[in-house]
Amino acid sequence: MTNAPLRIGVAGLGTVGAGVLKIFAAHQDQLNARSGRPLEVVAVSARNKNKDRGVDVSGFSWEDDPVALARRGDVDLVIEVIGGSDGPAKAATEAALARGAHVVTANKAMMAVHGGHLAQLAETHGASLRFEAAVAGGVPIIKALGEGLAANKMRRVYGVLNGTCNYILTEMQKSGRDYLDILADAQELGYAEADPTADVGGWDAAHKLALLAALGFGCKVDFAGVSVEGIERISLPDIQFAAELGYRVKLVGVAEMSEQGLSQRVAPCLLPADSAIGALDGVTNAVVCEGDFIGQTVYEGPGAGEGPTASAIVGDVIDIGRGGVRPTFGVPASDLSSAAQRPEDSLASAYYLRLTVIDKPGVLAQVTKVLGDAAVSIDQMRQIGRQPDAATVLVVTHEAAHGQVRDAVDQISRLDVSLAEPIALTIERA
Amino acid sequence: MTNAPLRIGVAGLGTVGAGVLKIFAAHQDQLNARSGRPLEVVAVSARNKNKDRGVDVSGFSWEDDPVALARRGDVDLVIEVIGGSDGPAKAATEAALARGAHVVTANKAMMAVHGGHLAQLAETHGASLRFEAAVAGGVPIIKALGEGLAANKMRRVYGVLNGTCNYILTEMQKSGRDYLDILADAQELGYAEADPTADVGGWDAAHKLALLAALGFGCKVDFAGVSVEGIERISLPDIQFAAELGYRVKLVGVAEMSEQGLSQRVAPCLLPADSAIGALDGVTNAVVCEGDFIGQTVYEGPGAGEGPTASAIVGDVIDIGRGGVRPTFGVPASDLSSAAQRPEDSLASAYYLRLTVIDKPGVLAQVTKVLGDAAVSIDQMRQIGRQPDAATVLVVTHEAAHGQVRDAVDQISRLDVSLAEPIALTIERA
Repeated sequence: MTNAPLRIGVAGLGTVGAGVLKIFAAHQDQLNARSGRPLEVVAVSARNKNKDRGVDVSGFSWEDDPVALARRGDVDLVIEVIGGSDGPAKAATEAALARGAHVVTANKAMMAVHGGHLAQLAETHGASLRFEAAVAGGVPIIKALGEGLAANKMRRVYGVLNGTCNYILTEMQKSGRDYLDILADAQELGYAEADPTADVGGWDAAHKLALLAALGFGCKVDFAGVSVEGIERISLPDIQFAAELGYRVKLVGVAEMSEQGLSQRVAPCLLPADSAIGALDGVTNAVVCEGDFIGQTVYEGPGAGEGPTASAIVGDVIDIGRGGVRPTFGVPASDLSSAAQRPEDSLASAYYLRLTVIDKPGVLAQVTKVLGDAAVSIDQMRQIGRQPDAATVLVVTHEAAHGQVRDAVDQISRLDVSLAEPIALTIERA
Repeated sequence: MTNAPLRIGVAGLGTVGAGVLKIFAAHQDQLNARSGRPLEVVAVSARNKNKDRGVDVSGFSWEDDPVALARRGDVDLVIEVIGGSDGPAKAATEAALARGAHVVTANKAMMAVHGGHLAQLAETHGASLRFEAAVAGGVPIIKALGEGLAANKMRRVYGVLNGTCNYILTEMQKSGRDYLDILADAQELGYAEADPTADVGGWDAAHKLALLAALGFGCKVDFAGVSVEGIERISLPDIQFAAELGYRVKLVGVAEMSEQGLSQRVAPCLLPADSAIGALDGVTNAVVCEGDFIGQTVYEGPGAGEGPTASAIVGDVIDIGRGGVRPTFGVPASDLSSAAQRPEDSLASAYYLRLTVIDKPGVLAQVTKVLGDAAVSIDQMRQIGRQPDAATVLVVTHEAAHGQVRDAVDQISRLDVSLAEPIALTIERA
């Protein structure tokens, strides 16, 4: 182990990059002590040199181009906080790794799409590539799953991975106001982007889930293998009915390994209101890790924000400073398995269904016949909220194969008496 | 980094030791892959060679004496799962470290009492000494606090650190049965020892708290500095009244660092029922870590048991196999500060008081006068459960200095009208 300074370049000076510089400014001595060697920020790069970032950058060498920063001979480690799966973020990461410089990144999109390739590149050149900040913000879930729980075969990793969606769903329930209203609030508060698709469409959670799955199950990152559904179709009645049944609606990412293969899915679903994930309010993230020896463990904390994300990045830097290169995904990239993808139809869950149908005698009989014919058995069924000519029918099924439920829902949607696309949400085990 | 096998000796073959051997038997290939080198159990030691432990030990060299095991030239790492703060556990640990062999231990008592000395010994000889399994069982809280959150100045670390007490308090609340009844159940279920003092007296939690404080605040382990109060005096009415007020009674360990110094205390206290710690039921453990950049993060999981504890031990072994020696408490033992101890009287909390007094006019006036004279202001006050001649008075105070509340309670207990020792529990911020 060396005691020489670890010289750091920060590529990107947005909120998170500035946060990283603030931690160094506040805790330099502590960071050096914990890393066993001096950690020195020597250079930074961003598009605009003169922007006020609330932190003094005049003491660092400046590069306009992050790739030039990554190639500097006086930089041993690049902190990549530019963002975006490709473009300058990827170019700078590759440039650093290709010459054996370490990279710490908060970039979930880049890691989810190119993680396998980048991990391989890092290993070829004896560099570390770490991404604690990419999942669940400041919560050290990558370290927990990849190191702390490494003695286990993991069975399931799931959780609330997107704070924006959790904020929206929480507020809908608490305020009784509808999706678009709360989304507008979230945009005003800075919890949601002007174009909220990446969050509310489930894509951000899917990036994170693919990373957790790779690490937890020792398989190649397979972002394309994540089935993704967002929260755009969740309406207030779903949240209210779920609450009456003792559940909460959450956007949950679930990765599960079984003999039938790997399942990765992001979707709004119901969870018991008193479970760790069901009870999780606001912008907080939480991940549940289930392994064969450990049983169930839960990790909660702020999923985003300057301080938490920067904390995760600097934690990675300290680790790298300590010496010893760990493979990015726990085992060498070449040893990561290509997990067979489990056909989603073969999964089984209880379901919550909301059907909008014509309000006339015989309709319920039609609906129940379709479900019965598909071998989907009914746990509870209620008709509520009769409008003129239309009725809302809520169905909670017993556990049934996803494929059978889908077929049944598809048939129901094509019945003459069906007035709107049915809503079908799984009820997840907590 | 070496690829040579890491040769392991297991000292102690109780439940946890057997669990460790089971993980090696089940996941040998995965463990090697994650450690980057073969991990080989070569020798074991226990008192009775012929006992059936549900796991085959015939393939390992046998030692009757753990110190002899620790001195074997073919053992690079000793797993110490004998238990007890001194005696053979400490002797074996010292013997291993003194010759530069690594030690992984689950022994909270030994680490709380002798952690500073042992960490120094490990560093002097270039060995690793790790203790993930000593706190919160399988939950990788030592790794989270010492590595994942290392970029932060921690402000407060607190949680439910003893599953036995949490089981008892949870069951009292759910069943409405009294302390001794539930304790007897817990003993029958194996959740409590025949002599339950270490658990219900708060000592086990105090060991763990001292370790969390050392790691979180970078100071020397100071077990003697923990103020300890057990759950023996908690009775059903306290739990029921707390619930009516929206709280749960938990045995909580709290370590807090402020300008006035370090405070470490284990005591039953009230927490909001909907907080992470307040909502924690059964034998589960949970720890909340609060830092300046991260904010608040929560870690939950099984606090004890064969699988979880063995999982934590093997996680430490994998880490050591990876190479790179980390100081036991995050920074070199010689750099650990001696934190000034904050006088407990200077802490401030809201309080829950239960007073048993003579039921006659003027008594409440006497009580409120004592509180008022001590500058303890009252948030709520109720008289309940009138028995012949005796009344129970519940008081919830506003935040007040612990010293002032203690003085007031002491005076109340000496009033002529006081019929029993008052109960005073802090209400902790969640």
